Amino acid sequence: MAIKLYGAAGSTATLQVQACLAEKDLHYEFVSINMSYKEHKTPEFLSRNPFGQVPAFEDGDLKLFESRAITQYLAHTYADKGNDVIIKDPKKMAIVAVWIEVESQKFDPACSKLVWELGYKPMFGMTSDDVVVEENEKKLEQVLDVYESRLSQSKYLGGDSFTLADLHHLPVIKYLMGTKAKRLFEARPHVSAWVADIQSRPAWVKAITT
Amino acid sequence: MAIKLYGAAGSTATLQVQACLAEKDLHYEFVSINMSYKEHKTPEFLSRNPFGQVPAFEDGDLKLFESRAITQYLAHTYADKGNDVIIKDPKKMAIVAVWIEVESQKFDPACSKLVWELGYKPMFGMTSDDVVVEENEKKLEQVLDVYESRLSQSKYLGGDSFTLADLHHLPVIKYLMGTKAKRLFEARPHVSAWVADIQSRPAWVKAITT
Repeated sequence: MAIKLYGAAGSTATLQVQACLAEKDLHYEFVSINMSYKEHKTPEFLSRNPFGQVPAFEDGDLKLFESRAITQYLAHTYADKGNDVIIKDPKKMAIVAVWIEVESQKFDPACSKLVWELGYKPMFGMTSDDVVVEENEKKLEQVLDVYESRLSQSKYLGGDSFTLADLHHLPVIKYLMGTKAKRLFEARPHVSAWVADIQSRPAWVKAITT
Repeated sequence: MAIKLYGAAGSTATLQVQACLAEKDLHYEFVSINMSYKEHKTPEFLSRNPFGQVPAFEDGDLKLFESRAITQYLAHTYADKGNDVIIKDPKKMAIVAVWIEVESQKFDPACSKLVWELGYKPMFGMTSDDVVVEENEKKLEQVLDVYESRLSQSKYLGGDSFTLADLHHLPVIKYLMGTKAKRLFEARPHVSAWVADIQSRPAWVKAITT
């Protein structure tokens, strides 16, 4: 079976999958989709992801999209490869699933707006919208307050070990650490230690440097 | 083990879990959280869900929140009870996981705004914001165009059988069918047939009438 990832540099969703592929120590072909040339809107790409968004993924005859579905597939299918990013015990895994949902439902909606306003807009010579920034920084602070409390009780969000619940945060955190939103993470000691820990994982370092 | 669901009437997230409990034919105690009295912001409730939102859930000594994490737990833990809502084959389940993510990432963000604007606001004597309605109807139409194509190829979103990927849509569809957004579903024949099919499931009828 050959794994192919269709993605784009700078896409946080693509990076979520790359982070997981690195943790599972899996070889794959990276197919670069040039969004400036609208390659994500071609009929060929739309047959891979009908929403016309990166990433798309294939493993032999299986075709998937949606980054969090792809990481789950990799974690379960390649359970015996690389590092564990799920937990076998069903009750402990149910707790991990809660925090996977928290990232998806609470952390990401606020952060993806901040990544756009504070990361991409300045890069494209556009002006950040202060009202949107303020509103989403407030939402992020509420989420990080919950994380601070959670991480004072367990080393990682899902429990004692690093799992997908942590991994899914990595790309957005990478971008926000280069913006003024960094202070919101640094103001919370347990969050700050967790960020330093997960950012220094060898697989993540490999994912963002190769 | 005793299952308890802490929820509120009218909460779509609570109804997602109730739909799953009905499909799995599980008995449970419903603990009504009165949000008018801010019962979802008490220290006791915040210990169950630190975001102060319904639902919260317990099964013996296991405490969970986030509706989609709870349904996954029920589907896997009680695989031998009631109706199957997941698929054992890992590749087929990976496809189901894609459409579970589509509901969470694409369908729900647009629909939850429409439920608020077209469902709850009029009920509370508030005026709907036409700009927000138009914007989110457009987003919903784009999602339903993808669904129309998908459902012309497979009976359900995740494949040949009803799964969590369909079930998670039920509460929001229930509310939108009572609003002008109903026309967006009815304009698409495969979507319309799917809506009729999943809405008529005995477990769902039981969930919303008991």
